[in-house]
Amino acid sequence: MIREAVQHRANRIDAYAINSKELQILLKTKKNDVEKVELLIGDPYDWKGSRWNFTTVSMTISGRDELFDYWIANVTPELRRLRYGFNLFNKKESVFYGEKGFRNDPPEDIGDYFCFPYLNKADIFTAPEWVKNTVWYQIFPERFANGDPSLNPESTVPWGSEEPKVNNFFGGDLQGVIDHLDYLEDLGISGIYFTPIFKATSNHKYDTIDYFEIDEHFGDKELLKKLIAECKNRGIRVMLDAVFNHGGFYFPPFQDVLKRGKGSKYNEWFHLWEYPVETRPKPNYDTFGFEYKMPKFNTENPEVKNYLLEVGRYWAREFDIDAWRLDVANEVDQSFWREFRKEVKAINPDLYILGEIWHDAIPWLKGDQFDAVMNYPFTNNVLLLFAKKEITPKQFVENMTKVQHMYPKNINLVTFNLVGSHDTPRILTECGNDKQSLKQVFTLLLTYYGTPSIYYGDEIGLTGEQDPGCRKCMEWEEHNQDTDLRDFVKTLISLRKKEPLLANEGSFIFLSPELSDKSFGYVHSNDTESIIVLFNTSDKKDKVKLLFDSTPSSVDDLLTDQ
Amino acid sequence: MIREAVQHRANRIDAYAINSKELQILLKTKKNDVEKVELLIGDPYDWKGSRWNFTTVSMTISGRDELFDYWIANVTPELRRLRYGFNLFNKKESVFYGEKGFRNDPPEDIGDYFCFPYLNKADIFTAPEWVKNTVWYQIFPERFANGDPSLNPESTVPWGSEEPKVNNFFGGDLQGVIDHLDYLEDLGISGIYFTPIFKATSNHKYDTIDYFEIDEHFGDKELLKKLIAECKNRGIRVMLDAVFNHGGFYFPPFQDVLKRGKGSKYNEWFHLWEYPVETRPKPNYDTFGFEYKMPKFNTENPEVKNYLLEVGRYWAREFDIDAWRLDVANEVDQSFWREFRKEVKAINPDLYILGEIWHDAIPWLKGDQFDAVMNYPFTNNVLLLFAKKEITPKQFVENMTKVQHMYPKNINLVTFNLVGSHDTPRILTECGNDKQSLKQVFTLLLTYYGTPSIYYGDEIGLTGEQDPGCRKCMEWEEHNQDTDLRDFVKTLISLRKKEPLLANEGSFIFLSPELSDKSFGYVHSNDTESIIVLFNTSDKKDKVKLLFDSTPSSVDDLLTDQ
Repeated sequence: MIREAVQHRANRIDAYAINSKELQILLKTKKNDVEKVELLIGDPYDWKGSRWNFTTVSMTISGRDELFDYWIANVTPELRRLRYGFNLFNKKESVFYGEKGFRNDPPEDIGDYFCFPYLNKADIFTAPEWVKNTVWYQIFPERFANGDPSLNPESTVPWGSEEPKVNNFFGGDLQGVIDHLDYLEDLGISGIYFTPIFKATSNHKYDTIDYFEIDEHFGDKELLKKLIAECKNRGIRVMLDAVFNHGGFYFPPFQDVLKRGKGSKYNEWFHLWEYPVETRPKPNYDTFGFEYKMPKFNTENPEVKNYLLEVGRYWAREFDIDAWRLDVANEVDQSFWREFRKEVKAINPDLYILGEIWHDAIPWLKGDQFDAVMNYPFTNNVLLLFAKKEITPKQFVENMTKVQHMYPKNINLVTFNLVGSHDTPRILTECGNDKQSLKQVFTLLLTYYGTPSIYYGDEIGLTGEQDPGCRKCMEWEEHNQDTDLRDFVKTLISLRKKEPLLANEGSFIFLSPELSDKSFGYVHSNDTESIIVLFNTSDKKDKVKLLFDSTPSSVDDLLTDQ
Repeated sequence: MIREAVQHRANRIDAYAINSKELQILLKTKKNDVEKVELLIGDPYDWKGSRWNFTTVSMTISGRDELFDYWIANVTPELRRLRYGFNLFNKKESVFYGEKGFRNDPPEDIGDYFCFPYLNKADIFTAPEWVKNTVWYQIFPERFANGDPSLNPESTVPWGSEEPKVNNFFGGDLQGVIDHLDYLEDLGISGIYFTPIFKATSNHKYDTIDYFEIDEHFGDKELLKKLIAECKNRGIRVMLDAVFNHGGFYFPPFQDVLKRGKGSKYNEWFHLWEYPVETRPKPNYDTFGFEYKMPKFNTENPEVKNYLLEVGRYWAREFDIDAWRLDVANEVDQSFWREFRKEVKAINPDLYILGEIWHDAIPWLKGDQFDAVMNYPFTNNVLLLFAKKEITPKQFVENMTKVQHMYPKNINLVTFNLVGSHDTPRILTECGNDKQSLKQVFTLLLTYYGTPSIYYGDEIGLTGEQDPGCRKCMEWEEHNQDTDLRDFVKTLISLRKKEPLLANEGSFIFLSPELSDKSFGYVHSNDTESIIVLFNTSDKKDKVKLLFDSTPSSVDDLLTDQ
């Protein structure tokens, strides 16, 4: 047995509460190195004389990646306290693994076992329930629909008349969204993620000038209220996007700093290195990237903190938004996010907090900061398999299994899955305009655990390279839409609604990665039903064998309803 | 190379800030499997055309345990942002390791690297500076000294006249401590950790009746103020102990619940299962262990939270205490501790928060809850080596190396090292009354990183088994004290004061575990000096070879000053 590969730590990542009664315990071992794992469990205070009372439960393999087997077990300790250890078996040996390392046999000293001291409800990672059943639709407002030409910026060009550029405008606005809510309702989506709508100069509005105003080219607060009310009527949730990491260049406090330097009352709002404050040749203050137009906020300054927290509270309180999407979330300090969560959840405990983090996000997902992050590891692997064809189905399953086991299960159920956004090339373009591949992508997106998001227009076949290319005007002429694709997406969404197993009910496991060299699949199961999702990534027929513990009493094809 | 043994995650445990500019990166590899590790580092936004700019620094081995080599490197990213990956080399191969796994060569896509997005000051683990230079002395007030017989409980027996029992009283009190501050000052200690002094019925006072009153047999608030003032005059810090996990049986709100059941206005203060509330045959409410006399608090109830937080604030605000020791800290919810930290640090940012946690404590040591925990893994290994002789010096070094690398360095510097407490047998008794072993234990305790604590009387040779045996009356007749031992401890304390390297300055590393089968040692170093501490754990002479990078210009024996 490769002992160095046996990994577990009682750190709330490998041992965590999934509800107020149940813990899930995760163990990693070298792939194919261990044949059986028993979990030894007991209450730390339950002794018979000098002997600690423990019982044993079997662990099962919940996934395999390139290097590891992942073993899990669920445990319901009567008094919400747990000591535990592992007995590992293979043909050659059996060995005990506990907090102090390996022993030949389970030790008598319970100090040698791992400790989950107490399952306190307050510490359970809890995201809003509704998120698990939501299908998101991401709207880039300047490019979705122009509903009120009177608000057009001066330089507006006719809708779709030219390629999207870094600085052109087509006049998209909130009225345009209201005008097309019927379309979205018909499509079946149940949440809209709006990229920023606050006052800003650019077409993407990530350069905020006023966090408390709607951009005048998009509409006003009354109109937003109307839009939100119309969404709520249709059962559609609304998520707004804000940049708390940095201000826009024309954010008045920053302009004041540029003008007055040390004399500005805002000089502690940013991380200034020296005076006078200079933007060129290089900014002499902290920025996002090296962009002098994006001065980083000093979120440790109580004035800044109060200002930004009030932004978080204001739109939740006055507009009853359902979710916040937080730009560049991992560069802001975590103390700020802890307060942010407390403040907005005090207004609406059901508000979903989504951080933009492209990397391993575990430090932000302990239950005290975000409910979820944008699942770009999902995106990457989907692209590598279906679009770029750079990995095999087996590698895909292994990579996804790794990502799945990086986070506790209750985090996975609300993870924000996307296959493209305003920051990436269009998914159809990534697929080399191969619609069959794109259909597989949508099938995966809409039958996977987590909360899926569709970038506006992907469902009707919009194309485009890296931004600004991926920010084309939405196509509203039906004869220019790929309606076959749209109907396919619509079917998948309605299937996900009809079958809660596809949307985070039950358990999830990949079929053995060695299904075939062309095909892979996964199973969602509860006590009575299983839904198997199979993908043949080649253009040839494939035959695979599925093993069942017991013979199914009936088998239906959900897509064809047969 | 055993890839399954290569372990790193960008989770603030393996990658962390040690100050406002510097990060430390930790990597585990199978012992003796990897010969060289290079850390590839760069700013995520620093590109030359399409090529990411990275540089390379060497990692060094900071320790070896039974299974792993621990590699570290310190990095000072100019703009406080870091992407990084590892190049691992051995005779057979070289390989890159990043967030997405292994690659033959460093990948071009910086998405494949690990990410430390931003070093925000607010997120640095920061404990009070003074703790690093403190030597604690733990006092169990009922047994330290009887300074005011008029406060004696009715059943008090003469000082030291009988063995300590679960329920006998000897009349120790706060005046007794004041009377012996000269002794403590002479010994050289610089902090006193008092087990509870609040109103309670038992002799140990962990069964609190009133968190806002001093126990009448110990004194009153005026006397505590005097004691604290006298301590401060002598440069001695004061730590109080409180039980926030559960109340005492006679805590009035619990008595009210017992009496009124559902009608009690305190029925949400505890975790009651049903009515009437019963204590026998088994309690029908959550308790500490299975002890009906210790009802667990419902710390999620805002009333309870406010009550307990005010306890934390009150003694900090009104009595200017320097530290809180928190009993059964890991069974209380973490949300409570986050608020607790915020509240007491708002009153005194320099207040030290010490949690009683016997196990892996990483979930509480992220900088948002405790400053330190009681380092029982230290205690255990010291006992196994010097007292029980159950492990070899090599095993000791390996076990301690493992513990050392479970936590970031800035956590280690304030960890609370103890070799015994009111909860464990006396260290001399553990050593089988072998004074030579005990002297080695004290030498280790007082020359190790962290903040050492001496349990009252250990320094003069008190003995005793598991509690209540370990709670004997302090011996004040000098002819009954082991003054040779006391002088030895005094010398070590003064040495630790004189040589900041022994007290958390500089770096710390064990000499190779294979020093000899009898001996081990470690080195504290800064740029100009090294202090080597060597232990021969046998009763025979031993000869060991020490390797130096360069010839030392002079060598002194610190104990004999030669």
